[in-house]
Amino acid sequence: MIKVGIVGGTGYTGVELLRLLANHPEVSLDVITSRSEAGMAVSELFPNLRGHVDLKFSEPDPEVLARCDVVFFATPHTVAMALVPELIKRGTRVIDLSADFRLKDVEVWEQWYNTEHTCSELFEQAVYGLPEINREQIKPAQLVAVPGCYPTATELGFLPLLEAGLIDPKHLIADAKTGVSGAGRKAAIPMLMAETSGSFKAYGVSGHRHLPEIREILSAHCGEDVDLTFIPHLAPMVRGIHATLYGRLNKQADLQALFESRYQHEPFVDVMPAGSMPETRSVQGANVCRIAVHQPQGSDTVVVLSVIDNLVKGASGQAIQNMNIMFGFEETLGIDVIATMP
Amino acid sequence: MIKVGIVGGTGYTGVELLRLLANHPEVSLDVITSRSEAGMAVSELFPNLRGHVDLKFSEPDPEVLARCDVVFFATPHTVAMALVPELIKRGTRVIDLSADFRLKDVEVWEQWYNTEHTCSELFEQAVYGLPEINREQIKPAQLVAVPGCYPTATELGFLPLLEAGLIDPKHLIADAKTGVSGAGRKAAIPMLMAETSGSFKAYGVSGHRHLPEIREILSAHCGEDVDLTFIPHLAPMVRGIHATLYGRLNKQADLQALFESRYQHEPFVDVMPAGSMPETRSVQGANVCRIAVHQPQGSDTVVVLSVIDNLVKGASGQAIQNMNIMFGFEETLGIDVIATMP
Amino acid sequence: MIKVGIVGGTGYTGVELLRLLANHPEVSLDVITSRSEAGMAVSELFPNLRGHVDLKFSEPDPEVLARCDVVFFATPHTVAMALVPELIKRGTRVIDLSADFRLKDVEVWEQWYNTEHTCSELFEQAVYGLPEINREQIKPAQLVAVPGCYPTATELGFLPLLEAGLIDPKHLIADAKTGVSGAGRKAAIPMLMAETSGSFKAYGVSGHRHLPEIREILSAHCGEDVDLTFIPHLAPMVRGIHATLYGRLNKQADLQALFESRYQHEPFVDVMPAGSMPETRSVQGANVCRIAVHQPQGSDTVVVLSVIDNLVKGASGQAIQNMNIMFGFEETLGIDVIATMP
Amino acid sequence: MIKVGIVGGTGYTGVELLRLLANHPEVSLDVITSRSEAGMAVSELFPNLRGHVDLKFSEPDPEVLARCDVVFFATPHTVAMALVPELIKRGTRVIDLSADFRLKDVEVWEQWYNTEHTCSELFEQAVYGLPEINREQIKPAQLVAVPGCYPTATELGFLPLLEAGLIDPKHLIADAKTGVSGAGRKAAIPMLMAETSGSFKAYGVSGHRHLPEIREILSAHCGEDVDLTFIPHLAPMVRGIHATLYGRLNKQADLQALFESRYQHEPFVDVMPAGSMPETRSVQGANVCRIAVHQPQGSDTVVVLSVIDNLVKGASGQAIQNMNIMFGFEETLGIDVIATMP
Repeated sequence: MIKVGIVGGTGYTGVELLRLLANHPEVSLDVITSRSEAGMAVSELFPNLRGHVDLKFSEPDPEVLARCDVVFFATPHTVAMALVPELIKRGTRVIDLSADFRLKDVEVWEQWYNTEHTCSELFEQAVYGLPEINREQIKPAQLVAVPGCYPTATELGFLPLLEAGLIDPKHLIADAKTGVSGAGRKAAIPMLMAETSGSFKAYGVSGHRHLPEIREILSAHCGEDVDLTFIPHLAPMVRGIHATLYGRLNKQADLQALFESRYQHEPFVDVMPAGSMPETRSVQGANVCRIAVHQPQGSDTVVVLSVIDNLVKGASGQAIQNMNIMFGFEETLGIDVIATMP
Repeated sequence: MIKVGIVGGTGYTGVELLRLLANHPEVSLDVITSRSEAGMAVSELFPNLRGHVDLKFSEPDPEVLARCDVVFFATPHTVAMALVPELIKRGTRVIDLSADFRLKDVEVWEQWYNTEHTCSELFEQAVYGLPEINREQIKPAQLVAVPGCYPTATELGFLPLLEAGLIDPKHLIADAKTGVSGAGRKAAIPMLMAETSGSFKAYGVSGHRHLPEIREILSAHCGEDVDLTFIPHLAPMVRGIHATLYGRLNKQADLQALFESRYQHEPFVDVMPAGSMPETRSVQGANVCRIAVHQPQGSDTVVVLSVIDNLVKGASGQAIQNMNIMFGFEETLGIDVIATMP
Repeated sequence: MIKVGIVGGTGYTGVELLRLLANHPEVSLDVITSRSEAGMAVSELFPNLRGHVDLKFSEPDPEVLARCDVVFFATPHTVAMALVPELIKRGTRVIDLSADFRLKDVEVWEQWYNTEHTCSELFEQAVYGLPEINREQIKPAQLVAVPGCYPTATELGFLPLLEAGLIDPKHLIADAKTGVSGAGRKAAIPMLMAETSGSFKAYGVSGHRHLPEIREILSAHCGEDVDLTFIPHLAPMVRGIHATLYGRLNKQADLQALFESRYQHEPFVDVMPAGSMPETRSVQGANVCRIAVHQPQGSDTVVVLSVIDNLVKGASGQAIQNMNIMFGFEETLGIDVIATMP
Repeated sequence: MIKVGIVGGTGYTGVELLRLLANHPEVSLDVITSRSEAGMAVSELFPNLRGHVDLKFSEPDPEVLARCDVVFFATPHTVAMALVPELIKRGTRVIDLSADFRLKDVEVWEQWYNTEHTCSELFEQAVYGLPEINREQIKPAQLVAVPGCYPTATELGFLPLLEAGLIDPKHLIADAKTGVSGAGRKAAIPMLMAETSGSFKAYGVSGHRHLPEIREILSAHCGEDVDLTFIPHLAPMVRGIHATLYGRLNKQADLQALFESRYQHEPFVDVMPAGSMPETRSVQGANVCRIAVHQPQGSDTVVVLSVIDNLVKGASGQAIQNMNIMFGFEETLGIDVIATMP
């Protein structure tokens, strides 16, 4: 049983952490902070938690947080960087769901997030929490940066092809679609239901913050500079990411076998049978990435379909997967949830 | 560990039974039947079950089914009545999610379902599986009829008022709204997304099959003939029932205290704080009925808001709650799932 | 050709006014104001208007507005009351889509809107713009208060029954459902798509501002004090109101004939054939109220189903209908639009 | 005033033809056929047309149809090919919204539609009804094949680039998303709201029937063989197509100027300002294609965003645009409808 704290629990990744941690047999939820809602019962804000979570939101207090074995940050960027150094110094382990420690190049970070990074000295020690490439480094890590939602779906889809050197790494295309919960729980006219329901659009075409993350991770892992065109879209649904990935094949290979082999021991990557087209609802609420690989019409363009729940494998579920690895629990403990269909 | 069979597992209540039973620690899923899909892997039809359910659909075979400790029927009406007698004779316990054994009056049944009932002799022995009124009778039951979705939400909302004799039992109004999954997984133009999305309508105004069920159960339980106007509506969402119930008060009373007291020991009825207005999403995927009671403007009209997930507390979750009671398991075992929000 | 101005054109009733007025053959759109967006092209905010509306938003200027023949107010309450007196003084006619002039009792207004009314002296002169009861008074009116969306659907549904003295006026029940556009185009967490999609809930149960409006209008028109329980609900769709209305019959009557007769000459009230259940999508984008009347199971409870598009017959379409009447145009001019299905 | 007939009016393109033609000042709607619904009032099936269309469905009768000046076919493929020859022989003009006459290569047609084509002798005379490339040929045409929905959005997006020789024609990528109305009004489990709402998926990855159409048209028009990877997706909305198009640039050019120049005289193609990202709702109900061109991060990959309403510019609106051209009416007559937002 470990003591767990959550900083910033009023957003969608926060409530999803609570939903999953409330049923985790090795977790004692000790503290959840929110400046804006301090004093309010968590279950008043999120009635789905009535009867399951008795905590109240409290002001963030480093003393209190440092008593936890691990603290999750479910905050907008720049919040974690202010608090994490002290927690690290006191020996508390940190799992950051925000973007503060995902990159290794501070100049790139500052350019894309348009602000100064106040503790980039931790970049080296931070481990990028994608278990499918970094499981061994996650085990002893004191600071884990949970991947973004788009990067999770995109990287898992491109990895087998890049690792095998099968596609041109300079001309990747990721046409990605997200549900509206990806924009977070904050008041904004463009995310009103009256603005988004029944409509589909691209956004961030000139440059999305997940682009440098995908580029850096794939380049570092595959040992060659990759480049990609990344076009995110907003789909009229609440949860889910569908990444449609395109690459130019250098040579022929048994792509289905490649993917099955790459992920055969991964508990949370499901390579679908040849010919499959995964739906986002098949992963709704579940910590799994379902992938299918196609070579339409036998052309030299490979198409990978990769779906996740942006709030689970794309955020809170993956964060707990990291926690399980860090604390030596079974990797699937508490997160082996079945998706809800319909 | 008990052996469980499911007859008719290709519908929405079927896949929901599978989602919940796959994680039930005392259940061994032994057989699931479907004439139309015999031979197909369950997880091919329902990819959310990949990695969790390894069964294939098989032809229904009474021999095989009778080896189970309990068999669930997740079938259209008239299917259970043909198979149940043999299973009962062989000592297998049956939990029927269909309408075949919900009523006690065979004439009423035949009038509303417009066909002959072939084993009404089992009506007397069938127990109506609403634990909140019939827990003791459910324990030893060999045949349980799981309530309909609308009746569950409506009866739980009216019960405290009727039991206390506070409202005129002859003029109840139930204005109920359901998501589209209530219509089942069958091809029909009116249930296409292009027909239902973004639109709201009433249906079955002249008479819905859940009307006689509600009328009979409330009358039998409260010891007086009740009558109600029941208007179901189709809301453009997948899951959820919201029943807005109206009654004329005979006398004043502390309605909040009445509801809290009535359900204080019920694990799956959540009386919300005074002034609450429960959302259907707060019960999405969860086996709970959330209820709020109001007396707007201090008038003599009481308004009860009652929400459930039609596929869980309104069907498969409640069916497993009955199973837990019948087999002496903890009543919440395997179904204490937290709703997903957002 | 008349000169038309719009105050507050950045909301949903504003863009709907523009959509309909842009095609109105007798209207010259001269000015549209918005403090927040002054200087921006209307079609930049609302790209559906590209190629159809060339105006820019401007600061509200009484001098400029007074040059119009008629000015529409598509503003939150309290905005019109500040500007209208000057326009009235200068002889400009005003059609107010807000709540500022809908009631006749200033005390009731101030109680429900929780602020002082600064020009209640205009209450007497203001005409409630429901053509189906006030057509003659609308013709010469200088100030028209366009009814609220719920009141339009509710009043049109109850009127034939109350006028005929067929139902108990003290115990009306209106169970009403609206799409999310009813909440307007303003940033608010509860109206995010991630909060509302796929879910259904009641709101404003203790008292909604449309309740006193309905009560006052029905009472004044029918010559007896009516009272009603009014429960609004939020449905997961963008447009549409579905009012399900319940009344206790005092005596039997041919209800279908009553409704058909009452509305036989009304261009924008469509009494559906007996047994119909109108869908909100059948009026999407159209200035029509479709109504069906039922007496389920032959009981003494009458049920009226009344649907409108909240932004058209419930707001902007009805406003233009008033304008047509006021200026002697054919009542249907420019608003005889066919609903879009699917 | 011309006499118009519609064959197969019970689907979504049928009702959309009726919505638009009912307000067309030069059209007299004379006959609408449906084998399955013969005798039923059109407005009974489609209540949005109540008060606007008085026709009844009738059995298709070549005698009656031949009396029309023009007959629209809003039918599944293979229906038109059986009736069209006789109408052509009698001098009636035909606008076919189905796939029967869209291709020029009968072998390709028969391979993709998996059946014999019974009147391919009309292929040569059939004009592909995309006014933006074929306006002059459409004017005198007796038989027009209205383009498919995906092809319309895709071809209009790629045309300026291909005509200018700016991109590699052998490696086009079209990642396209459609609303569910594209599947038509027919009973099918995968198109139920409970199956599609809140979920996103690819389909037809191995080969969609619109692929050979796009390939043939672009090749023929641009004078070189093009090839593309075409991946259609189903988005959880009713109407709309969003095509995200990718091409590899051969040389630099002012892409914004190129697109603006190419479409400057087109009434129904709206090139959005640089940096725009069009939403499908901005064309909802309107006969317009909105296009934006991007070169993200200054790379050599051009990205075109092209949106249409699949039922209007992607089907019925474009069909009427063809009719206007064929009969010498103003091209925008009756179809200059403004999209509905929200």
